[in-house]
Amino acid sequence: MAHHFFLSTVAAPGEMVLLEGENAHHAVRVLRLRRGENITLADSGGRGYRARIASVNGDRVAVEVTEPLASTEPSLRVTLLQGWPKGDKLDLIIEKCTELGVARISVLTTERAVPRPDPAAAARRRERWQQKALAAARQSGRHRIPEVSGPLGLLEALAGLAPGSLLLVPWEEERSLGLRDVLARLPAVTEVTLLVGPEGGLSPAEIELIRNYGGRPVTLGPRILRTETAGLACLAAVMYALGDLG
Amino acid sequence: MAHHFFLSTVAAPGEMVLLEGENAHHAVRVLRLRRGENITLADSGGRGYRARIASVNGDRVAVEVTEPLASTEPSLRVTLLQGWPKGDKLDLIIEKCTELGVARISVLTTERAVPRPDPAAAARRRERWQQKALAAARQSGRHRIPEVSGPLGLLEALAGLAPGSLLLVPWEEERSLGLRDVLARLPAVTEVTLLVGPEGGLSPAEIELIRNYGGRPVTLGPRILRTETAGLACLAAVMYALGDLG
Repeated sequence: MAHHFFLSTVAAPGEMVLLEGENAHHAVRVLRLRRGENITLADSGGRGYRARIASVNGDRVAVEVTEPLASTEPSLRVTLLQGWPKGDKLDLIIEKCTELGVARISVLTTERAVPRPDPAAAARRRERWQQKALAAARQSGRHRIPEVSGPLGLLEALAGLAPGSLLLVPWEEERSLGLRDVLARLPAVTEVTLLVGPEGGLSPAEIELIRNYGGRPVTLGPRILRTETAGLACLAAVMYALGDLG
Repeated sequence: MAHHFFLSTVAAPGEMVLLEGENAHHAVRVLRLRRGENITLADSGGRGYRARIASVNGDRVAVEVTEPLASTEPSLRVTLLQGWPKGDKLDLIIEKCTELGVARISVLTTERAVPRPDPAAAARRRERWQQKALAAARQSGRHRIPEVSGPLGLLEALAGLAPGSLLLVPWEEERSLGLRDVLARLPAVTEVTLLVGPEGGLSPAEIELIRNYGGRPVTLGPRILRTETAGLACLAAVMYALGDLG
């Protein structure tokens, strides 16, 4: 696989574009790419291209865009609302869900979520999360970098949902309604939101609130999934059922 | 959720059973469980029960088996043949695939797999892998502990497959045949084997060999999945399509 870069501008076949800043650093210092090597690009519009390195001058890399690539983005837009888990589990969640095609991730401070950093620390975390998403998007050859936002409150997240969008909530206390039951009865959807509680789960009051916003608690089967597993298993299943996984 | 233990013997409601050795240590020293507390058990036959601690004497815990539990085991038996990845990625794979209901995991030494420890080191690793499976099986409330075996060679693994069993091989060079295409055209199956290459993928010669054993290379879509993501995404999709995930 060719190395993959994200541009902050639009591009088109036949054009020359520049890799600057972190992109140039990554190309020149980390990957030691040279003139003539093939790479792939995704532009700010989410379009992918093959490209070739035309020249390397210090930390400015000129690249010739050669031809468009088939999109690696799913037409299904999935948002993950993830209750803030302990430790560095979010890194794993962001990496895996980016590979699996998530469009957006928002981190939620729910009742039972443990981390509660002050706003400055939260901003630093968010920057780190976005970097994780960039690295995973590069590695998996995505044409868009998932946007990572938060931490935000549950009510704020629910109020921000597009009206009528499908909101699936894997919930360990839901015994009868399965993910498959909900997906099988769906009309065609292009937007899905998955809401996953933190380690301690979602409280009854939170589930009530989620239901009021049209959320559908579903079971993912009889085994207990950790919070980081629930989101990625649900995302894989949704991408399999409605998206482009296989 | 009640704490969960695996017995090495069979049990039945109304019986008293003993937690000994590591189980007793875990119950008494780690979890500090006391008389009267409720736990769950899985016996050596893969049956689950509710149970109650009847007495704690030093490191012997007597437990009263009260009633049977609905099975948490999928009727679909999935085996994962995993090309040996670098570092401690296998720990993640074993943990997540155990949560998702895998029946067996075998670690393969393929052409491009990097780790090549000597037999003594391999035996220590296998013990560690089996411990990971036990911990994840406990945490997710499974009634059977997935057996982790290997490292073994690809040919040995293929020769050990049940004749006619479905062998799915996520492969980044397969462009047209999707996982969904294969699963949609299946008659009812009860046994699936997933074969996932290590970081460097499977070689053309290995794919040829796999095809000779009836293996079906499939694409998991246009994004590049890391080796540890491919297995769990494929397992989640297969459990969604044919098993009990939702």
